[in-house]
Amino acid sequence: MASVDTLKDISACVIIIGNEILSGRTQDVNLAYIGKRCDELGIALLESRVIPDLEERIIDTVNECRRHFSYVFTTGGIGPTHDDITSAAIALAFDRKIVRSEEAIAVLDSYYEPGMLTEARLKMADVPENSILIDNPVSGAPGFQLENVFVLAGIPMIMQAMFDGITDRLTGGALIITANIATNLGESALAEGLAKLQDNYGDVSIGSYPYFKKGKLGVNLVLRSTDVSRVDALKLELKSMIKSLDGDVVD
Amino acid sequence: MASVDTLKDISACVIIIGNEILSGRTQDVNLAYIGKRCDELGIALLESRVIPDLEERIIDTVNECRRHFSYVFTTGGIGPTHDDITSAAIALAFDRKIVRSEEAIAVLDSYYEPGMLTEARLKMADVPENSILIDNPVSGAPGFQLENVFVLAGIPMIMQAMFDGITDRLTGGALIITANIATNLGESALAEGLAKLQDNYGDVSIGSYPYFKKGKLGVNLVLRSTDVSRVDALKLELKSMIKSLDGDVVD
Repeated sequence: MASVDTLKDISACVIIIGNEILSGRTQDVNLAYIGKRCDELGIALLESRVIPDLEERIIDTVNECRRHFSYVFTTGGIGPTHDDITSAAIALAFDRKIVRSEEAIAVLDSYYEPGMLTEARLKMADVPENSILIDNPVSGAPGFQLENVFVLAGIPMIMQAMFDGITDRLTGGALIITANIATNLGESALAEGLAKLQDNYGDVSIGSYPYFKKGKLGVNLVLRSTDVSRVDALKLELKSMIKSLDGDVVD
Repeated sequence: MASVDTLKDISACVIIIGNEILSGRTQDVNLAYIGKRCDELGIALLESRVIPDLEERIIDTVNECRRHFSYVFTTGGIGPTHDDITSAAIALAFDRKIVRSEEAIAVLDSYYEPGMLTEARLKMADVPENSILIDNPVSGAPGFQLENVFVLAGIPMIMQAMFDGITDRLTGGALIITANIATNLGESALAEGLAKLQDNYGDVSIGSYPYFKKGKLGVNLVLRSTDVSRVDALKLELKSMIKSLDGDVVD
């Protein structure tokens, strides 16, 4: 099948750092957000990894991924407490010193009442040498960029605000057009026809996702391509296929 | 800090297979479920990877992970349509042939009305040679186990039922005790005291997770250890620390 990633030449990987995600205590929602934004930007998000707050695992994973992907986004572990080790680990991955950024101190200073910028809070101004800061309009403490690696907060509201602030640093590829068709037919009924259409439409990726909704079974078909005319043509063919199988297109 | 994984000698990795997760179209919830179950079973879930429905990526990822972890759980891509390539890719990863399982046909046959077990549905009985089937009490089509790799469905309801059916095949390590304390103090206020307590309690992992809830800021502290008496002792110390900082323990 025509896969998403063969359609784009700019790739990305998300590294989610946090024991709380792996233990199931916290439900990650950052991957889905970054996935949608990459799609809009014409960047192929090809992989994500979830790893614990362990220095060695962060170093190895960041170093492996930054060589394989155009962009790497990390989330989590840049707060002020003892278990926030992401910044220090990423400095080690790049073999750089951690420095207290004057620019970051100035930002933090503007977020806190006089006298409230404690030593613990100042730790959030410690970033690898020669990083480019990433603005945090929610709570001040910045993220940072080192080469193709973007180090973002783990709290979704802050992560999203940071991501929105770095999009002008990202170069996208071809934009992907997406179309959806839902039907009350099951996957088994559709399988043979879908396989034939996929053979004829090598430049459109057809995803088939069964659902159970309000007690009813059905399938969502998701078409993705860089060519809107091919998506439109395939959509028509799919609708007539569904009709020929005595199925309905549903909302 | 004492990290989760140093407490356990049985490890696991979850491989989530599906373009729809990377595009953000579908929010994964399987990782959190498996994470919680591993915790209960005394298995350290040390990593997760999310990869596209691409044969080569599935083969490489499964082969890398099955060497590094005691158990590998995959989710997604075992349905009947053209984009369900997990079973075939995992057969290739293990260098085994795909065979149509008589046992799986019998199971499927019992789930469908006479005459409804079409060729498309029979595809779901194709598994790598010498696999051990995994029961699917929801919709029949089984998963399968090959050595330390467990191949599960992507639909959460089915995945959960499959996972619950394989726990007697999994050997757990030491059980982890977890305790939570929430406070209205911020992370910056807590950071210094937490770091000192973490130094004194090397056998308990202290996680610090800021939250914004009902307009209020606070921090959830999560204690994890194999030793309940140490967790209890640390909990008392944390409560008195919070009090000494003019904070409250909140529900």
